[in-house]
Amino acid sequence: MPSETLNVGDQRPGGRAARVRSAVLQAAFELLKENSYYGFSIEDVADRAGVHKTTIYRRWPTKVLLVTDAARNHSDSRVPIPDTGTLRNDLQAFARSVASNIGSIDGAHAARSTIISAFQSEDLAEEMHTFWAERLAASAVIIERAVARGELPATSDPQLIIETLIGPLWVRLMLTGEPVDENLADRVAALLVGA
Amino acid sequence: MPSETLNVGDQRPGGRAARVRSAVLQAAFELLKENSYYGFSIEDVADRAGVHKTTIYRRWPTKVLLVTDAARNHSDSRVPIPDTGTLRNDLQAFARSVASNIGSIDGAHAARSTIISAFQSEDLAEEMHTFWAERLAASAVIIERAVARGELPATSDPQLIIETLIGPLWVRLMLTGEPVDENLADRVAALLVGA
Repeated sequence: MPSETLNVGDQRPGGRAARVRSAVLQAAFELLKENSYYGFSIEDVADRAGVHKTTIYRRWPTKVLLVTDAARNHSDSRVPIPDTGTLRNDLQAFARSVASNIGSIDGAHAARSTIISAFQSEDLAEEMHTFWAERLAASAVIIERAVARGELPATSDPQLIIETLIGPLWVRLMLTGEPVDENLADRVAALLVGA
Repeated sequence: MPSETLNVGDQRPGGRAARVRSAVLQAAFELLKENSYYGFSIEDVADRAGVHKTTIYRRWPTKVLLVTDAARNHSDSRVPIPDTGTLRNDLQAFARSVASNIGSIDGAHAARSTIISAFQSEDLAEEMHTFWAERLAASAVIIERAVARGELPATSDPQLIIETLIGPLWVRLMLTGEPVDENLADRVAALLVGA
C-alpha cells in the first residue's frame, strides 16, 4: 500500500488536490488501456496512482464514475475544441484530433474497452451516454461559431454535423478496421465543408 | 439430434441446398442475436436449423466463417442497395435501411455482438473487416451512378461518402445511445446531398 502524501483538502489549482485528481484519472485511463474494464479494480488504480483507495472512493464513489471521469479527462486534453476562425480549419483540426486519438494503439484500445464494457453494464452505458452527449454538445460550438460568422445557415444542426464528421472515423475503428488517420480526417472535413 | 432431411448436393436455386443454406444462416443469425458470439456452438446452430452438424461443417469449416456468412446474408436482405434514379433518394433509402436494421432491438444486438466478438478474436475481426469492405464496395455503386448521371463530380470518393452517410448511425449505436431512426437517416442524407 503506498503512503498517502497528498492532501485532497488543498483545492488550489495546480495544488495537491489537483495533482491527486490528475494522477488518479491518468492511472485509471492507463489501466483501461491495458485491460478490459473488468480487468482492474479501484485498488489497482490506487496502487498505480500512489494514493490510498479511500482517497479515490471519497471523490469517485463507484468505478463507473471513475472510469467515465478518466475518459472525460483524456478527451478534454487529447481532443480539444478548436477555434481557428474558419469552419474548414475547425472541422479539420477537430477531426484530426479524434483521428490521432482513436487512431493510436492506446486510444483505440481504450475506446474499444469502454464500448465493450458499456454493452455489458447498464450503469456504465448510462454514464458513457452522458459523457458522449456532453462531448457532442461541447463541440457543437464549432458549428455555432460558423453560423455566427455567416459560413453556415442558421438552420444548421450542430450536433448532426459533428456526428457526421466523426462518424467515418468510428466506422473504421469499429467495422472496417481501415486506418483512422490525418488523411481521412482531412477528406471528411473537406466533404462536409462542401455541404 | 434432428433428422437430416435436406440434400446439400442439390444445387438448384430454391432447391434443397438453398433451403439448407438459408435455414442454417438464419439459425446462426438468430443465435447471434440472442447470445454473444461465444454463447453458442455450431451444434446449437445445427439443432436450431434442423440439420446435422456435419452438413454445416461441410460448407462452413469454422464458426467464424459461418457467422460472417450469416451477417452477410442478413445484410443482403435487410439493407439492399437502392437504385431509385436520384442521389438524394438513393442515399435516403440506404440510410433508412441501415437505420431500420441497427435501430431495431434485434439488429442492434447482433451488431453489438459481432463487434464485441471481433475485438476478442483476430480471426473473426479479419472476416468482419472483409465483410465490411465488401459491403462498402457494393454500396459505392450508389455514388458511381450519381457521378454517371452528372449529379456528382467525377472526383467524388464513393467509399468516403457511404462511410460518412452511415457514420452518425453507428456513432449513435456505439457511443451516444441516441435513437437510430428514419428521421436521423433522412437528415444525414439531406446534409450530404447539400455537399
